[in-house]
Amino acid sequence: MSLLVVGTVAFDEIETNRGRSGKILGGAATYVGLAASHLISDIQMSAVVGGDFPQEYLDLFVQRKLDIRGIHIIPEEKSFYWSGRYHENMNQRDTLATELNVLAGFDPVLPQTYRQSDFLMLGNLTPSIQRSVIEQMDKRPRLICMDTMNFWMDTAWDDLLSVVGMVDVLAVNEEEARQLSGEHSLVQAARKIQAMGPPCIIVKRGEHGALLFYGDEKFYAPAMPLDRVVDPTGAGDSFAGGFMGYLCKVNDTSFESMKSGLIYGAALASFSVEKFGVKGLLDIGEQDIQDRLVDFVKLVSFSV
Amino acid sequence: MSLLVVGTVAFDEIETNRGRSGKILGGAATYVGLAASHLISDIQMSAVVGGDFPQEYLDLFVQRKLDIRGIHIIPEEKSFYWSGRYHENMNQRDTLATELNVLAGFDPVLPQTYRQSDFLMLGNLTPSIQRSVIEQMDKRPRLICMDTMNFWMDTAWDDLLSVVGMVDVLAVNEEEARQLSGEHSLVQAARKIQAMGPPCIIVKRGEHGALLFYGDEKFYAPAMPLDRVVDPTGAGDSFAGGFMGYLCKVNDTSFESMKSGLIYGAALASFSVEKFGVKGLLDIGEQDIQDRLVDFVKLVSFSV
Repeated sequence: MSLLVVGTVAFDEIETNRGRSGKILGGAATYVGLAASHLISDIQMSAVVGGDFPQEYLDLFVQRKLDIRGIHIIPEEKSFYWSGRYHENMNQRDTLATELNVLAGFDPVLPQTYRQSDFLMLGNLTPSIQRSVIEQMDKRPRLICMDTMNFWMDTAWDDLLSVVGMVDVLAVNEEEARQLSGEHSLVQAARKIQAMGPPCIIVKRGEHGALLFYGDEKFYAPAMPLDRVVDPTGAGDSFAGGFMGYLCKVNDTSFESMKSGLIYGAALASFSVEKFGVKGLLDIGEQDIQDRLVDFVKLVSFSV
Repeated sequence: MSLLVVGTVAFDEIETNRGRSGKILGGAATYVGLAASHLISDIQMSAVVGGDFPQEYLDLFVQRKLDIRGIHIIPEEKSFYWSGRYHENMNQRDTLATELNVLAGFDPVLPQTYRQSDFLMLGNLTPSIQRSVIEQMDKRPRLICMDTMNFWMDTAWDDLLSVVGMVDVLAVNEEEARQLSGEHSLVQAARKIQAMGPPCIIVKRGEHGALLFYGDEKFYAPAMPLDRVVDPTGAGDSFAGGFMGYLCKVNDTSFESMKSGLIYGAALASFSVEKFGVKGLLDIGEQDIQDRLVDFVKLVSFSV
């Protein structure tokens, strides 16, 4: 089974109380793809970068078996750049700079080989672009998951609702779930969002884990309490990458598989935040992931 | 086995976006005792109230099989009164009024029959009073759990540390754990607090559940996502009551029992917040609790 990932591939520059990253590889699609690459090998990347994007990053993608034919390079422009500073609590951050550059004109045309993909992960992008990607598919993917943010709720409400109505899984944080639904209780928020289309809602809660609402069922995926969080950037995208990678691997979209997928996602997110940038995702192997999964099993095991 | 509960028995007056409670029964020991009363019948209450405390509340305690010989009544004074207003998000609240009244002079003298108690729950009180209770025991209880708050860290640091060094379980919220330890990571915070004495640290995270650190082990007890939170007052105390009630019932303090106890605590807390005041704890029976425990099992069940 193949996974198509559409989103940003970019430069990040991050400051935390653990230090400064310098200008490093970032972007939602980057984290999703690299996280998923621990589980599956057929991953198609759709993104746009500028002439300043280092060949070594593209080589890294290829080395991780990511298909980069859909990464469009615009030589005369610069790559998307984001810079931010995290507060002591790591849950809040200030954006220091956002330079859209190539992203301003991003309108992906999927390579023909991408259009049969079985699983589709739509990173946080303009809703009309997310819809255009869905419409380019030759067949309806088995599962479509989308990320979004409150900015689109403020600026592109109708477009956003039309895409939300086309997907299977919406992944948002607590505030976004509340803003989208107008409900404070996450249970009620999920029910209202389900009525907009997607049967599955993932509410991401950062260091508190994530909640999955699947029809009338619900599941709580904890986050692993860690000794040291170095850089939370990309945690949600690594989480999505682990989740979608797992579903694609088992080629199943049942509640049971989604629950397992969320734990894989939580495991990959926990590695991601332990180092700056994507390093935490690159420094691990299969055994590390298996060991962390066992830690997750232990973390919530009890008998009553 | 018997459980001794020392803490406030009081009046609360609560405003939330769900309405106003009027002047109702409140206090930490009240919630602890009533929650625990669903699991065990030998519960000794130590508290102080004024002449204004209604006989019907005392009758309610007796009806729930609570031993009230240690509830001291000072007829010429008024009971402790707290009034607060919750924000829309229910995680924040403004205190509108705190009238210590009888609590200002609270210096419990335990009835002789209380001094052999096997389990001791010390509600949030002046640390020197918590210590005095421990010192009045004829024998060291099998397990002592204490609650506290950041106010005592600011005003009674040395006293607080001396009590912390005498207990088995410290139950605090995230901010309190961070302030007490000076560490942001809860894993590191727990380790530092363990070095102050208690081998077990419970970090309460409200709607995100609670973390237990037991030696080098850790456990994540989720909170149940609810359709409607009416009144969060007493959630942490109901949680503590379920936890201590369970340990007392099984007469065991192992990691396994503590994990189960936390789920009982989370279940009782989930009932507590569904109605104003203690009503959520009174309107349930054994089957309701069993059903909710099954919900908790389902909430975090997965296979990887």
